[in-house]
Amino acid sequence: MTLQRAKGTRDFLPEQKIVRQYIIDTLREVFELYGYSPLETPVLERYETLSSKYAGGSEILKEVFKLKDQGNRELALRYDLTVPFSRVIAMNPQLKMPFKRYQTGPVFRDGPISTGRVREFWQCDVDIVGIKKMTADAEILSLADMAYKRLGLKVKIKINNRKILNSILKEADITENQEDIILIIDKLYKIGVKGVKEELKSKKLTDKQINKIISLISIKGSNSKKLKELCKLENKEGLEEIKELLSYLKEFNTKVEFDITLARGLSYYTGTIFEVVLNNDLSLSLGGGGRYDDMISKFMDSKQEYPAVGISFGLDRIYNILVNKNIKKTNTRLFIIPIQTLKESLNISQKLRENNINTDIDLNNKGISKNLDYANKLNIPYVLFIGENELKKKKLKLKDMNSGKEKFLTIKELCKFLNG
Amino acid sequence: MTLQRAKGTRDFLPEQKIVRQYIIDTLREVFELYGYSPLETPVLERYETLSSKYAGGSEILKEVFKLKDQGNRELALRYDLTVPFSRVIAMNPQLKMPFKRYQTGPVFRDGPISTGRVREFWQCDVDIVGIKKMTADAEILSLADMAYKRLGLKVKIKINNRKILNSILKEADITENQEDIILIIDKLYKIGVKGVKEELKSKKLTDKQINKIISLISIKGSNSKKLKELCKLENKEGLEEIKELLSYLKEFNTKVEFDITLARGLSYYTGTIFEVVLNNDLSLSLGGGGRYDDMISKFMDSKQEYPAVGISFGLDRIYNILVNKNIKKTNTRLFIIPIQTLKESLNISQKLRENNINTDIDLNNKGISKNLDYANKLNIPYVLFIGENELKKKKLKLKDMNSGKEKFLTIKELCKFLNG
Repeated sequence: MTLQRAKGTRDFLPEQKIVRQYIIDTLREVFELYGYSPLETPVLERYETLSSKYAGGSEILKEVFKLKDQGNRELALRYDLTVPFSRVIAMNPQLKMPFKRYQTGPVFRDGPISTGRVREFWQCDVDIVGIKKMTADAEILSLADMAYKRLGLKVKIKINNRKILNSILKEADITENQEDIILIIDKLYKIGVKGVKEELKSKKLTDKQINKIISLISIKGSNSKKLKELCKLENKEGLEEIKELLSYLKEFNTKVEFDITLARGLSYYTGTIFEVVLNNDLSLSLGGGGRYDDMISKFMDSKQEYPAVGISFGLDRIYNILVNKNIKKTNTRLFIIPIQTLKESLNISQKLRENNINTDIDLNNKGISKNLDYANKLNIPYVLFIGENELKKKKLKLKDMNSGKEKFLTIKELCKFLNG
Repeated sequence: MTLQRAKGTRDFLPEQKIVRQYIIDTLREVFELYGYSPLETPVLERYETLSSKYAGGSEILKEVFKLKDQGNRELALRYDLTVPFSRVIAMNPQLKMPFKRYQTGPVFRDGPISTGRVREFWQCDVDIVGIKKMTADAEILSLADMAYKRLGLKVKIKINNRKILNSILKEADITENQEDIILIIDKLYKIGVKGVKEELKSKKLTDKQINKIISLISIKGSNSKKLKELCKLENKEGLEEIKELLSYLKEFNTKVEFDITLARGLSYYTGTIFEVVLNNDLSLSLGGGGRYDDMISKFMDSKQEYPAVGISFGLDRIYNILVNKNIKKTNTRLFIIPIQTLKESLNISQKLRENNINTDIDLNNKGISKNLDYANKLNIPYVLFIGENELKKKKLKLKDMNSGKEKFLTIKELCKFLNG
C-alpha cells in the first residue's frame, strides 16, 4: 500500500508548522490587543446553512464538499469562516453588541488545483458586528496595519468605498451589469487604461460613458487630491465615509492609500472595502475585507440590523513569504548529550525544564558525533555535554552550535545564561 | 430558515474558547519544554489510508465520515491523529529519528450521540518514534505529570505493561479470548472482585484459572511490593521494563501507581500502558496512552523498526472540568469610555496597545452606564474614563471593576500599573 495525502491537501512538518504557529501567534496577540475574542465553530455544518442564498455565491457553492451522516442528514465542510460566524450570531441572541471576534482554522473548497490553490487551507478572520460608524472600519484597518508590521511585512493598505463606485456608475448612467463593470474597473492596475477601455467597450458602453468612467477612476495624487476631484460626484455618501474614516485613521497613525479602482469581487460589501498588498509586489494580496451591513440580518431573516466590518488574513500567502525568511526553525533551546551519565542527565534535564528552558536530551546513548549531527539537523542552538568529570566539578560543558565556542557553567549559571 | 448546527457538533463562544486556548497553550508550553515539535496534517485523508487494517479497528471504521471529491476520489475525515502521523512518517524518510511531535486538532466520528459524546472533537497527541528504551516512556509520563500540574489538576497516573498482562494469562493457561479476558480484568475497579469473577466465569474459565488470575491482579500495596509478589511470573520481561521505567521516573521526580489491572482497550499496545485519572474521581480518565512498537512499521509495510510511545490528552474532558473553575474569562485588560473625546481616546487606545495592553474602547458613543454594563458583562477588569477635564489635567480616571475603586493616572503611570 502506497501512502498518499488526499489530493489538494498539505502537511506541515515541524520546521514549517513552527512558522505557521509564529504567524498565528503574532496575529492572535494583535487581535487581543484590540479587544477581539476567539471563537471556535465546527468544521462540519449543515448543508442547508452553507447553501443559503445569502451565504456564499453560486461560484462557491459549486466547490462545497458535501457528505452525509449515518442518519442521512446532509452535511458540508465549511468553505469560509463568515457563514458559520453569522450562524453563531443568529443562534445566540444573548451576545452583547458590539461582538468582536477572531477565528482561525481550516476551510475547504473542492475546486481545480492550480498553482498555489489547495482544497484545504486556513483562514484567519477578524470581524466586528454592531457598529455602523467608521470608527469600526478604522479599528480593523489599524489592527491590520499593526499585524503586518509585527510580522515584519512591508505592505500597502488600499481602501475604497462601494458607494463611490456606485456613484461613478450612476454618473456614467450605467444601470445594467453593474457588478461586471465594477470588476473591470478593478483590473486597472493589471491591464491599464487601454485594457479597461476595451473591456468596457465589450460591455456595449458608449464612448461618453467610458470616458466618464476613465476620467473619474484615473485621478492620481494624494488621498486628499482624489477626494477633492471626486467632489463633483452627485452622491457624496461614500466620499463622506472615506473622509471620516481617514480622520480616525490619523488618530491610529495608520497610513492607507485611497484607491478609486479597488472593487473586490464579493457582492455583499456595502461600504468600505480594503485590500492589503505587498509593497514590492503590488499584485500579491495578503488579505482584505470590508463592510457588509446587510448580510447577517438577511441571512438571519431578521429585522434587526447587524452592521459588520471585517478582514480576512491570507494565512497561506503570508506563510509562503515568511517560510523562506528563516524566521524560526525550532522551539528547542538546548540538547543534552549524556556521557555515561544517563540518570543524572535526565535529572538535570528536568531541572532545566522546571526553569522554563526548552530542553531535549539523547534518550538512546547514541554517541557524541551522532548526537551533534542530530542537534545540528534540528537547528538546536546549544548542546550540553554531561560526563562524570563535569558532574564531579559541578560545571557542565555548553557548546554554542553557531559559533562553536564552548564554556563551563554550573546549572544555575546555565539557567541564567539561557533565560537571559 | 432556522439556523442550526450539524448534529453532534459544538460551538465555543469566546468565554469558552478562552478556556480551551488556555488549555492548549499550557499543554503546548510543556510539550516544547520537553523538545517536542508541532505537526499539522489535513482534516481530509484518503479513505484508503484510514481504512488500512493496521490503522483503526473495525469499530472505529464504522464511524468514519466518508465523502468524495469532484474527481470521484474516496476521501474521509480523520478519526484520530495517530494514523495521519504514521502516514507522515511513511512519506518522509528524511525525518531524523527520534521524531518527537505533538499535534492538536479536530477529529471526527459518526457515532451515536450519548452524554458527552460528540461527532467532532479535539485530540491533543504527543508521541516519540524511534526509541525502544524505557527512557522514552519515562519522558512521556514526566511530560504528562508536568502538564496536568500546570493545568492545576490533581491526578493519579496509573501504569502497567501489556507483557505483564500476557504473563498473567499464560500463568493461568489462557490461550483463547485473550483480549476479552484483559478487558474484564480492566474492570476490577468498577465491578469489584465478585464482578470480575462472574464475568470470567461467563467466558468458561475454570475455577482454578479464575483464582489464579484474581490472586495475581488483586495484589495490593506499594509499587515495590507488587513487583516483588509478581516475581513468581515466569516471563519477567514486563516486570523488568516496569522496574527500569520506575528507575527513570525517579530522576524525573514523577510519581506513578503501578496498577496490574490497567489494560486499555486498544490492541495495538505492545508494552507500557498508562492512564491519567482525576484524584477525586478515579473513574474519570483525562488521558492515556502507551507503547506501540509494531503499528507504524506494519502500517508502512516496512522492515525497519519504528518503536513508538505516546499519550493522548482528553482535551474535551479537561475543558469540562476547567470551564467551571473560572480560569480566565477575557483577554482584555482595559475598556476605554470616551466622554466627548472620541478622537483623543482613539489615539490613547493606540498608545496603550503599542505598550502591549489589551485595550477595548467604545466606538459608538453609547453613554457611561451602558458602557459600564458592557465592560462588566465582558468581565473586563479595568475601565478608563477619558473626558475633556482628564485630558486637560493629563490624568485619566481608572476604575477597578472588582473593587469599584478609582484613581487618576497619567498614561505612563497607567502603562506601568497595567503591565506590572
